[in-house]
Amino acid sequence: MLDKEQLERLDLAFNPRSVAILGATKEPDRVGYSILESVLRGGYEGRVVPIHPRHQEILGQKVFARLDDVDGPVDLAIVALNERASVEAMDECGQHDVKGAICVAGGYKEMGGEGEALQARLAEAAVRNRVMLVGPNTLGLINAQAGLNASFWPTELHRGGVFSLITQSGGVGQMIGFKAQDEGLVINKWVGVGNRAALDFDDFLQYLAQDPTTKVIAVFMEGTESARRFVQLAGEVVKRKPVVILKGGKAELSQLCAQTHTGSMAGSPKVYHDVFEQFGLIVVDSVDEMVSVSKALALAPLPRGNRVAILTPSAGPSILLVDLLDSLGCVLVPFASETMERLEGLFRDVPVVLKNPLDAAAVGYSGDLYAQLADIVLADVGVDLLIAVSIDHKNRRFPSGELIELSRKHGKPVVVYYISDVEHVHKHREACQAGGIPFYLSAEETAWGAAGLVRYARLRS
Amino acid sequence: MLDKEQLERLDLAFNPRSVAILGATKEPDRVGYSILESVLRGGYEGRVVPIHPRHQEILGQKVFARLDDVDGPVDLAIVALNERASVEAMDECGQHDVKGAICVAGGYKEMGGEGEALQARLAEAAVRNRVMLVGPNTLGLINAQAGLNASFWPTELHRGGVFSLITQSGGVGQMIGFKAQDEGLVINKWVGVGNRAALDFDDFLQYLAQDPTTKVIAVFMEGTESARRFVQLAGEVVKRKPVVILKGGKAELSQLCAQTHTGSMAGSPKVYHDVFEQFGLIVVDSVDEMVSVSKALALAPLPRGNRVAILTPSAGPSILLVDLLDSLGCVLVPFASETMERLEGLFRDVPVVLKNPLDAAAVGYSGDLYAQLADIVLADVGVDLLIAVSIDHKNRRFPSGELIELSRKHGKPVVVYYISDVEHVHKHREACQAGGIPFYLSAEETAWGAAGLVRYARLRS
Repeated sequence: MLDKEQLERLDLAFNPRSVAILGATKEPDRVGYSILESVLRGGYEGRVVPIHPRHQEILGQKVFARLDDVDGPVDLAIVALNERASVEAMDECGQHDVKGAICVAGGYKEMGGEGEALQARLAEAAVRNRVMLVGPNTLGLINAQAGLNASFWPTELHRGGVFSLITQSGGVGQMIGFKAQDEGLVINKWVGVGNRAALDFDDFLQYLAQDPTTKVIAVFMEGTESARRFVQLAGEVVKRKPVVILKGGKAELSQLCAQTHTGSMAGSPKVYHDVFEQFGLIVVDSVDEMVSVSKALALAPLPRGNRVAILTPSAGPSILLVDLLDSLGCVLVPFASETMERLEGLFRDVPVVLKNPLDAAAVGYSGDLYAQLADIVLADVGVDLLIAVSIDHKNRRFPSGELIELSRKHGKPVVVYYISDVEHVHKHREACQAGGIPFYLSAEETAWGAAGLVRYARLRS
Repeated sequence: MLDKEQLERLDLAFNPRSVAILGATKEPDRVGYSILESVLRGGYEGRVVPIHPRHQEILGQKVFARLDDVDGPVDLAIVALNERASVEAMDECGQHDVKGAICVAGGYKEMGGEGEALQARLAEAAVRNRVMLVGPNTLGLINAQAGLNASFWPTELHRGGVFSLITQSGGVGQMIGFKAQDEGLVINKWVGVGNRAALDFDDFLQYLAQDPTTKVIAVFMEGTESARRFVQLAGEVVKRKPVVILKGGKAELSQLCAQTHTGSMAGSPKVYHDVFEQFGLIVVDSVDEMVSVSKALALAPLPRGNRVAILTPSAGPSILLVDLLDSLGCVLVPFASETMERLEGLFRDVPVVLKNPLDAAAVGYSGDLYAQLADIVLADVGVDLLIAVSIDHKNRRFPSGELIELSRKHGKPVVVYYISDVEHVHKHREACQAGGIPFYLSAEETAWGAAGLVRYARLRS
């Protein structure tokens, strides 16, 4: 657990007044260049200070030879040096009262032997200098709320997201980041924990738990020696915010566990899974499931229970959805008799079988009628959540606006499964998601999103 | 089984010299309008004949009052009339020697009772008139090779695909079609079997099996009473072409089975699964898996065995891949000592652990070095297939061209997992896939694609 001062220093690392890049360089294929470019492209508005012994200027920024030459405070140092120079840099950071440092280099504990000893020295130096150390062997961190991209992935940032992310692997962080971007799920903060020499999962979880702009926390974990601290903390956090977790290393887990010493959570993937669930974390099996669940939790209100209704213009997709929902703990119950009467009134001349899932057939392609059907189904007291299925068709209108209104009017979540190619989806998705309706392109993602809401609602009730 | 004449007539329905649309209309939200629009937009080069008792012209096409008024042959009739008029239309088709008809209307067997009787009359009329009947209650069919879109989904067609599709549900057909489009998997032929009043799964499978332009066949099935005929035929077909199958209705299957009478394959989802596998079909669990597997089979050469190597710039994604591959019957074996020596030569100054999966770390972002590593790994006699993982980065080059050459040089499939948002993927995907390298955006899809090649290779060997 971080104490108050440590939390404050970590918060300054996420929201720095100025950022120094140790090892900034002019060579575009080097990390020290990409990181500087990331900070500049991300839209960071504080001071940016490249550090290099010989260059005068890189990417239009004035370069300082040493951290010591910089006038004024530096809150965050991004250390893009080799594994030995990175250790020495901790003292330099300490002398300048740098609050946090990101150590990008590999060559530490993951190499065993000498590397492990070097990592111990790095951690000791960071602690001695009161530097909140992220990594080593990390891609860095992002705080989109502050326009800060302190990673070596130059990408644009978007503000206003409520989804924050802790990953052990930079690459998996990228997997999640790109998928979130494709899904219109805006990332608020992201940190790659790397080798966790000083700061571990529980420290970052503690930080995000008290971050007022973070509403949903997601974690990708390969393994940790502080699993007990992590799950105990998470068990408290989930009372206020959902924590979604993906665990890697199923196939080789037994071997990996043999290499650890705590015993507290060593065991099969099933043990991990069960312990996580017992403490109220939402366990997912893939990056796509993580993003789908997180998006639903970020956008939609929670349902009162697990009773799902499906409205669709075609039976086949709903059959696949029912298979998935069934396996995820959601149920489809028959409509109330009053609902059936109202539906019969609408379907007088159309040959359809009235049931849940409601296959509206051709009627389901008319935007107006579709919205009327959604209204009737959402009014059913036995329905906690509506999955609205539609198929993109150039001659038909999708009633985004009405669905947003209906979700609010009935106080129930609506989740959209829109069958389409990626190209034709943007306009509808943006409209729906801005109005609190998570919007998906596959049956699996739709079911994961709906079930994610149901799972967290059950925990909170 | 279709006899020679039936096969010829069905082939003319897929490759008609002229197409009539019964029930063509000027109202854009009606099926009879969308179908005509589909035929015109699809680029069909034969004669298009809208049939309507009163209109003179629709969408620039001259309208005929009755099929009988049309001078010259009509090979395919698309019947967009109501469920009763559709039955009468079969006689009209027979009088004009129409080879095949698509009956779009619902209101038949799926409604029970009267609908079931009406469907029997429809089937009887079709058989009596020697009309090869698709449907009823179907979205239609597509033959992109002939520029024929005979469905009510107006969409553009692309030629040159080798992937053909049989689906029981139009909506699931759309799911697969849109996903295939997003993945750059070009559809050759697609037919929605609908209620299968006359033609069933096995008939269309027989047709596609002898279609020289179809290399991979995929099937979405909810249920059929002719399951035995289907699997026995499929067992023969898979000796020449892979058949990928997705079965819907897991959750409610027991109820569905109770409604059927054959007993031949009534039983749990596991029974279906096991029987399909026993006959050599490739069983998949989702639309995404179907498209991933089919794409690999459409593009890549078959591997000699199930030994997979992974080359990656980041360990995390490979951990998720290993978990998936392990569950799908692929194995990762250590590299040969000669391979290790060659890798050591390349990695002299870089701190990486040499193993399979090979995490090339920062080296993995250099296109030239990445290609050298791929060459070394593919040369290993213990490697049957390479999964090349990369992460999109604006300052780095992805060596598509080299990977295509290396796959050919070593005679082994290469599958790419490219971690990226959708926006930045098109150029690389197009290049790779044109060169026989299936290209994926998620770990699951990559593993499904690779495992699909391994599964079919095992069957063929």
